[in-house]
Amino acid sequence: MLIDGQTTTAFWPDPAGNGVFILDQTRLPHRVATVLLRDLADSARAIADMQVRGAPLIGVTAAFGLALALRENSSDAFLAKAAAVLRATRPTAVNLQWALGRMQDFLAPLPPTERAEAAFAKAQKMAAADVACNQAIGLHGLELIRAVQEKRRGPVRILTHCNAGWLATVDWGTATAPIYQAQAAGIDLHVFVDETRPRNQGASLTAFELGQQGVPHTLIVDNAGGHLMQHGEIDLVIVGADRIAANGDVCNKIGTYLKALAAFDNQIPFYVAAPFSTFDAALAEGGLIPIEERSSREVTHMSGLTAGGEIIEVLIAPPATKARNPAFDVTPARLVSGIITEKGVFAANAGALAGQI
Amino acid sequence: MLIDGQTTTAFWPDPAGNGVFILDQTRLPHRVATVLLRDLADSARAIADMQVRGAPLIGVTAAFGLALALRENSSDAFLAKAAAVLRATRPTAVNLQWALGRMQDFLAPLPPTERAEAAFAKAQKMAAADVACNQAIGLHGLELIRAVQEKRRGPVRILTHCNAGWLATVDWGTATAPIYQAQAAGIDLHVFVDETRPRNQGASLTAFELGQQGVPHTLIVDNAGGHLMQHGEIDLVIVGADRIAANGDVCNKIGTYLKALAAFDNQIPFYVAAPFSTFDAALAEGGLIPIEERSSREVTHMSGLTAGGEIIEVLIAPPATKARNPAFDVTPARLVSGIITEKGVFAANAGALAGQI
Repeated sequence: MLIDGQTTTAFWPDPAGNGVFILDQTRLPHRVATVLLRDLADSARAIADMQVRGAPLIGVTAAFGLALALRENSSDAFLAKAAAVLRATRPTAVNLQWALGRMQDFLAPLPPTERAEAAFAKAQKMAAADVACNQAIGLHGLELIRAVQEKRRGPVRILTHCNAGWLATVDWGTATAPIYQAQAAGIDLHVFVDETRPRNQGASLTAFELGQQGVPHTLIVDNAGGHLMQHGEIDLVIVGADRIAANGDVCNKIGTYLKALAAFDNQIPFYVAAPFSTFDAALAEGGLIPIEERSSREVTHMSGLTAGGEIIEVLIAPPATKARNPAFDVTPARLVSGIITEKGVFAANAGALAGQI
Repeated sequence: MLIDGQTTTAFWPDPAGNGVFILDQTRLPHRVATVLLRDLADSARAIADMQVRGAPLIGVTAAFGLALALRENSSDAFLAKAAAVLRATRPTAVNLQWALGRMQDFLAPLPPTERAEAAFAKAQKMAAADVACNQAIGLHGLELIRAVQEKRRGPVRILTHCNAGWLATVDWGTATAPIYQAQAAGIDLHVFVDETRPRNQGASLTAFELGQQGVPHTLIVDNAGGHLMQHGEIDLVIVGADRIAANGDVCNKIGTYLKALAAFDNQIPFYVAAPFSTFDAALAEGGLIPIEERSSREVTHMSGLTAGGEIIEVLIAPPATKARNPAFDVTPARLVSGIITEKGVFAANAGALAGQI
């Protein structure tokens, strides 16, 4: 996708072979800064500090992080240790475990001397597969958008929460893939972007992506989506996911559940876009998904750009105030109209998903 | 209520007779700054710029603003003009219209030479009545909190949205009055405070109030309340209101509807605390309430305190991003467990409210 008119991805191997480059997402939208991940520590820190985030991108970054770790030490013990370090960075998105599990299964039988190179090639395949996956999600989701377009005049108005955009993946995004495909197909669109407190991934990442791509959009606070739905201003909701249980319960960025309730109350289709790597067949229902609690400071402080062009953090609560900061919630399957995957759109229930995941 | 251990109110007449003092709520929680309103222009600006806000406090401020206007010019024409200026400051909270209507009805028959003094006395009575009203709301709401306490061990966990605290009234608050009464009654309480984007009245005002008063509380982002309800961490929701229609539909700060949906979905009582001056008997249902749209800048920028102790505004979205900013939404009566008024708790339906409003 585009930044300043130039095609880019969220992630690319250093052509000089020194590691992998990421966009530092904590600096967006104010700065487009790249960071070179050179080793295991760099990779783990980038995930934990959310320089990279989004379930699919976390998975791919972890796979490359493991490859970089094996350049340091390719022993069985270090392979296990490196995987454990990466696995511990974020608890909720299952793609992290999925990617590391696949890498370990692939690497463990190989002779240690071959592991580093094989791991790098395998991680590159996973990154390419992520792109292909999201393109397929986009094409399946495009049909849902087209169906809305055929029923109304004027733009198809889509609400999205958080950033399940190309910045949350290697390219295309999950929730945004149908939007970008619809744009390419010439469908008149308007995207309402939830700010997504506390880390504002909507305001800082999704609004940035859509702006760079030329997709018409409007930023709203997380509180406003229900009101817009009540007033017939939203046709469709599409969000991403961090983990989906076998029964179709969807764990996604905190606040997704509230938007799903409002969509249901106003009979607006609520779709989740996610690759099969986001499903956790081992979990019968969403209540079993571990929910990450992050720092209180993410709630009490806010990062932004001063009039002088400096990125600073300001305190937005009384200094003694304590905050709780659960990063995800679970939307019950009963509120989900369907799950847009690379293999098509599935109903959110155990029967429809059985055999697929 | 308390600031730095000293009893204060949100609003008090200048003992020297030069006008009325307000706390500048746009500077809280970082600065406790008082502003003297000397005339009509000061009063209208204080309401429009949200130096004072909250339905009851807007009403009282407008009443004093009219009194101050009549000191400038007590003619019939200026009385009408001043009322129109004040009425135009904010469209949604009905208390503004209610207070101005009562003032005009009272003042119009008086000889112009007597109006200014009579208006000041009348406005003071309205301020005193607001305090009494909120004390009564507090006592009625206390019984609801006591009923929860009797059914569980540990603190009664109350979620509130925005600031319907003493800073939104002259004293006690509406949604907070039951909380302060419960605290006084020795009930173990914990309040979850919604941040309340875009103006953060929860983070900057409610958290400030509760902290000053010594009420245990936790700040959360607006996205988090549904998750806490799903996990049994909220016993009761109490919010304020800006206007209540004859059928019990409640217009309140944007995002209230989403919390009402979540409370309903999790069978958690959802109460609205408001005086009868917040009811609009002329409106059959909430869809008819005008919803104020405020500046895009309230969404794209955030005010906070730097590490150096300066209050500044930072940009939190891409510079070209446009935002929509509806300030209120309407919660359908079907989601409201009851309305806590100065006359008792009423069911939110036309039958229960008929004859009362």
